[in-house]
Amino acid sequence: MHAITIPEPGGPEALVWDEVPDPVPGEGEVLVEVVASAVNRADILQRQGFYNPPPGASPYPGLECSGTIAALGPGVSGWAVGDQVCALLAGGGYAEKVAVPAGQLLPAPEGVDLTRAAALPEVVCTVWSNVFMVAHLRPGETLLVHGGSSGIGTMAIQLAKAVGAKVAVTAGTKEKLDRCAELGADVLINYREQDFVAEIKRATDGAGADVILDNMGAKYLERNVQALAVNGRLAIIGMQGGVKGELNIGTLLSKRAAISATSLRARPLEEKAAIVAAVREHVWPLFAAGHVGPVVDRELPMPEAAEAHRLVEASGHIGKVLLVAP
Amino acid sequence: MHAITIPEPGGPEALVWDEVPDPVPGEGEVLVEVVASAVNRADILQRQGFYNPPPGASPYPGLECSGTIAALGPGVSGWAVGDQVCALLAGGGYAEKVAVPAGQLLPAPEGVDLTRAAALPEVVCTVWSNVFMVAHLRPGETLLVHGGSSGIGTMAIQLAKAVGAKVAVTAGTKEKLDRCAELGADVLINYREQDFVAEIKRATDGAGADVILDNMGAKYLERNVQALAVNGRLAIIGMQGGVKGELNIGTLLSKRAAISATSLRARPLEEKAAIVAAVREHVWPLFAAGHVGPVVDRELPMPEAAEAHRLVEASGHIGKVLLVAP
Repeated sequence: MHAITIPEPGGPEALVWDEVPDPVPGEGEVLVEVVASAVNRADILQRQGFYNPPPGASPYPGLECSGTIAALGPGVSGWAVGDQVCALLAGGGYAEKVAVPAGQLLPAPEGVDLTRAAALPEVVCTVWSNVFMVAHLRPGETLLVHGGSSGIGTMAIQLAKAVGAKVAVTAGTKEKLDRCAELGADVLINYREQDFVAEIKRATDGAGADVILDNMGAKYLERNVQALAVNGRLAIIGMQGGVKGELNIGTLLSKRAAISATSLRARPLEEKAAIVAAVREHVWPLFAAGHVGPVVDRELPMPEAAEAHRLVEASGHIGKVLLVAP
Repeated sequence: MHAITIPEPGGPEALVWDEVPDPVPGEGEVLVEVVASAVNRADILQRQGFYNPPPGASPYPGLECSGTIAALGPGVSGWAVGDQVCALLAGGGYAEKVAVPAGQLLPAPEGVDLTRAAALPEVVCTVWSNVFMVAHLRPGETLLVHGGSSGIGTMAIQLAKAVGAKVAVTAGTKEKLDRCAELGADVLINYREQDFVAEIKRATDGAGADVILDNMGAKYLERNVQALAVNGRLAIIGMQGGVKGELNIGTLLSKRAAISATSLRARPLEEKAAIVAAVREHVWPLFAAGHVGPVVDRELPMPEAAEAHRLVEASGHIGKVLLVAP
């Protein structure tokens, strides 16, 4: 088969479409013939040499895909050759075929085109595990989503609205904020022009956000804690603004607030499977009902992964950038 | 009645036993004739002028008491004059009488002397709400308790052991660590001589603590995050080591860990009542069964509150220092 390989870490040009051996599904795995994959920021870090695949994972980038089951490894039940699926991957999505632990498979959701289903596994699992399983966002509460127009952001808006929460977002352009509003966001904050702490307080009668989904890390830590409501929960899933920040424990304590930080990729198989199972139970029905859908900026041919990375690094996109297998 | 008043904030001598008006129980409150109260660090901050009572609370110090119900305010059911109780207070425990919202009352536990029951409400509610309701310590997990010989620490050891967890403690003297061992602590760390990060890792085959109960705040923040296991939870309940510390979000994220910070006193009535109800359901039976008991350093007459504060500030005590009403 062919896959995007990284012979030497570097810029987008480091991504090389090359012939490689077919993966072989191991115990409890299935082989998926890939229809599409999608770009995640972690793929860019991996390309740059800063985020190596965990032990045992495919060396090729790509943390999610959609496709058709081509073969079953030993000990797999509940799935059949020919099933249309999408999957959370520890790597290897930028390829024509990938071997996936069965616990990370989801049926392609009803009402979603198979190619576009590649936009779902990472964002749905990340949003569900952080905003709902860890931070327990409840109906009537307010969620603040940083980077509202990102893949994660556009899914967080939709899922939070679907459960009856109020949603505030930050983004850097009017076009991005307009798209967030179309998806249901109630409070639109242009972080280049407005102070998100002041704006979220203004929008909540001074209370602040019950849950914040943050991809900035250190740069926003102090202001995120300021923006939290009493009993608020800050869920950090990225560190685009740095790793080490000052924490005002006094503010956190006076609000009886909490901070969590997670990633999906390094989790053991059983934790990923638990998240995937929760997503299938709680989120998948929302697709069938038409309440939630993938947000796709554009689809590029998989061999043009370098161009897709340039697009994502320039941050001009809204939602996900897909890579479609030839 | 008489109460300990604070005419001017200051040192222990600022505490003055004086005649004051009797409190009148309001809607949903009961009047308790106090048998004993206990010293908490928050009382010392209040005496120094750094921790004012929340709106509506008694101006006198004292966050817990034991005693007998002397009168019922309007709208109270489930309690009767003469009932022996202990109570979580927003203030006013250093007095002969105190008015208490009924939701903060607990029956004096079976098997515990009424005077010594004054040692329980703050520590049991603090430990249960943080270690169990927020951090969800589970059987087989490891809890690290800083200040293991404090009132909070001695109760945390007992409750964690009662649910089948492994317990590590830090303390500053051999005498304190020996007392922790008697209460069931499995791992004893002298923080003056040992690095608690290295010791907790050594005691857990490198894994670290699943839950840490911390009273130090900023001073321990970095090392506490280092000491956490994967999926670990740091519960901060005090800031004796400062308010602002550097947080390494990368370490937190790589461990999928969480930090919470809470206090009891400022919580709204319904949250306090929920904690008290959970304590009555889950912890009170442990006293009757003899698995858990109050740890009392000594009992002093309430008018000698200044001496009690000196003792607690010198940190030579183990467990709680009680103030017995005349």
